[in-house]
Amino acid sequence: MKIGVADTTFSNINMADFAIGILKKNSKAEIERYTVPGIKDLPVACKILFGKYRCDIVIALGMAGPMPIDKQCSHEASLGMQAVQLMASKHIIEVFVHIDEAKNNKELYDIAKNRSEKHAMNALALLKGKTELSRFAGHGRRQGKNDIGPIKAR
Amino acid sequence: MKIGVADTTFSNINMADFAIGILKKNSKAEIERYTVPGIKDLPVACKILFGKYRCDIVIALGMAGPMPIDKQCSHEASLGMQAVQLMASKHIIEVFVHIDEAKNNKELYDIAKNRSEKHAMNALALLKGKTELSRFAGHGRRQGKNDIGPIKAR
Amino acid sequence: MKIGVADTTFSNINMADFAIGILKKNSKAEIERYTVPGIKDLPVACKILFGKYRCDIVIALGMAGPMPIDKQCSHEASLGMQAVQLMASKHIIEVFVHIDEAKNNKELYDIAKNRSEKHAMNALALLKGKTELSRFAGHGRRQGKNDIGPIKAR
Amino acid sequence: MKIGVADTTFSNINMADFAIGILKKNSKAEIERYTVPGIKDLPVACKILFGKYRCDIVIALGMAGPMPIDKQCSHEASLGMQAVQLMASKHIIEVFVHIDEAKNNKELYDIAKNRSEKHAMNALALLKGKTELSRFAGHGRRQGKNDIGPIKAR
Amino acid sequence: MKIGVADTTFSNINMADFAIGILKKNSKAEIERYTVPGIKDLPVACKILFGKYRCDIVIALGMAGPMPIDKQCSHEASLGMQAVQLMASKHIIEVFVHIDEAKNNKELYDIAKNRSEKHAMNALALLKGKTELSRFAGHGRRQGKNDIGPIKAR
Repeated sequence: MKIGVADTTFSNINMADFAIGILKKNSKAEIERYTVPGIKDLPVACKILFGKYRCDIVIALGMAGPMPIDKQCSHEASLGMQAVQLMASKHIIEVFVHIDEAKNNKELYDIAKNRSEKHAMNALALLKGKTELSRFAGHGRRQGKNDIGPIKAR
Repeated sequence: MKIGVADTTFSNINMADFAIGILKKNSKAEIERYTVPGIKDLPVACKILFGKYRCDIVIALGMAGPMPIDKQCSHEASLGMQAVQLMASKHIIEVFVHIDEAKNNKELYDIAKNRSEKHAMNALALLKGKTELSRFAGHGRRQGKNDIGPIKAR
Repeated sequence: MKIGVADTTFSNINMADFAIGILKKNSKAEIERYTVPGIKDLPVACKILFGKYRCDIVIALGMAGPMPIDKQCSHEASLGMQAVQLMASKHIIEVFVHIDEAKNNKELYDIAKNRSEKHAMNALALLKGKTELSRFAGHGRRQGKNDIGPIKAR
Repeated sequence: MKIGVADTTFSNINMADFAIGILKKNSKAEIERYTVPGIKDLPVACKILFGKYRCDIVIALGMAGPMPIDKQCSHEASLGMQAVQLMASKHIIEVFVHIDEAKNNKELYDIAKNRSEKHAMNALALLKGKTELSRFAGHGRRQGKNDIGPIKAR
Repeated sequence: MKIGVADTTFSNINMADFAIGILKKNSKAEIERYTVPGIKDLPVACKILFGKYRCDIVIALGMAGPMPIDKQCSHEASLGMQAVQLMASKHIIEVFVHIDEAKNNKELYDIAKNRSEKHAMNALALLKGKTELSRFAGHGRRQGKNDIGPIKAR
């Protein structure tokens, strides 16, 4: 089993380290790291991780700025990663943090850590099979903050 | 006949259960479940349901948050599912609920249930053939709320 | 010659009937109907009309709601139909009516009828060849309302 | 050498005539015309001009209305033409005029003429080779209005 | 090793010269230049640089205007370049400057120079391998302005 971890130099938090920590603690999967300048460079990195490096899943971690143009960039990156997933028929777990999600650096750090770690667990679950997460279906799970939990049937 | 049902752990309502209930009641189709973290993970899950699991149609159920970034995510998910449909030449019935559609949890639950169930019926109709729904063409049908009905010819 | 006509149950006006009326009056083309729930289901229906049903052109008729999310849906549908056209190297004439184009049901009905009928004529023209419409180039033609006509050279 | 010229009946200015005038005056290239209803019909027309008609480059001329939905349409058309270029590995010179660029019909006409003619020259330049325009790199050239010229090094 | 440098005549700053200066100073890579009218012409130029000219990476430099329609154009260009990267499984380093990033021509010039030069260095790093930039992961690097640096762990 091989897991790709793609990240950026743009981010001001080393999100890949959080994800890799979880992966190492919870699996014996081999890890392939790929670091690019920014989020728009991630899709082709993911494609190379699937192709040349034969990864079974990729975790793509990045940060997006607070301006409208930054939302546009994250949209382009996300669409690129949609395409890569469909080309490879394999999952990319996108772990993006938007700077305007947080009020200050401490909160940004907490969001980035929580999201990276929980999504590393999600990646491991998806590798186990398509119904591994079904027991949590509709549970209102969140990454980067607390789960909201399911709405109870009336 | 094989029907894929893809859903998420992000949703706080188990929409897949609503759809599966209808499918079981109204058909003998085999059902393949696939649960992913969020809506952006649905497109590749649908592709795998068509490919590896040989589904004839997929119902993709998910929930989108109320913020602008959530609309962006749902847009990316929807575009990914457009691509998957064209790759497979098969329908994906997208059943998305946006949290800002409802004033409270009760209404959200009702929308999710109604939309999931009606679209499960739509999936069964599409499997019967391309004119199965033609008698309802222009009828102003809605999923998640009541039909608005056709405008009468002047 | 075979013309596909794809439409929806979401629309509250039977636009396909308008288009088919014109096609039957002005050609001997065979018509293949395909009815889907909503506009986002149209692209793959068009692809199937080109592939399995060997249509030479498709007229895709649908209605979009008045909310921002409805614009997003129509955008996704339109991008899907762009992709289908490029896959098939054949035209899809998109006949979309947006509910917020009209002040009331009567106006909506008139727009839908006018647009469906004029675009059915456009489909027949495109089937005749790539310069069939060249005599109308720059004429400010409109579907759904009156032509605005050409700006005269100064 | 063969140049495709695709245009629309929606435009209220015959932009193709401006482009063809320049092409005939400045080259001996063969010209293939293709007229479609609106800008969203241009991408597949361009694909057919590259494929069936073996054009080496295409000039695609169209007009977009002033409403938000018209921007959406032009965006869909432009994305379609991006895809066609990548499929063909050949340039499409997009010559779009937006009605809200001009204060009146006279200005609209001037913009359309200037942009069509300058871009016809650009098409001829690109056919000569990839560095034909390099002497103008960073020159602040504009089509539809006057060039702004380069910023001088400090 | 071959590096493509694609640029535009629309830009009013010769950004390619900045990038080429850095590439020549820091590598012995062969350089292929390709100049097009505007940013929307860049994606197919990049595809040709990868295909016909066998470049290993491309630096695509362009400027976008300050209006909403200019953001739309840059979005189309960026999506086109996402597609080209995935077709080639090679990086395109996008170096776009938006005119509204700067208060005046001097600042615009400084941003364009800084961004072009730093991204030329990024291109050289990516050519060395997928972990060449990993020591800078999470460092808050910026192109066009000063790095913001990493957030320290709490």
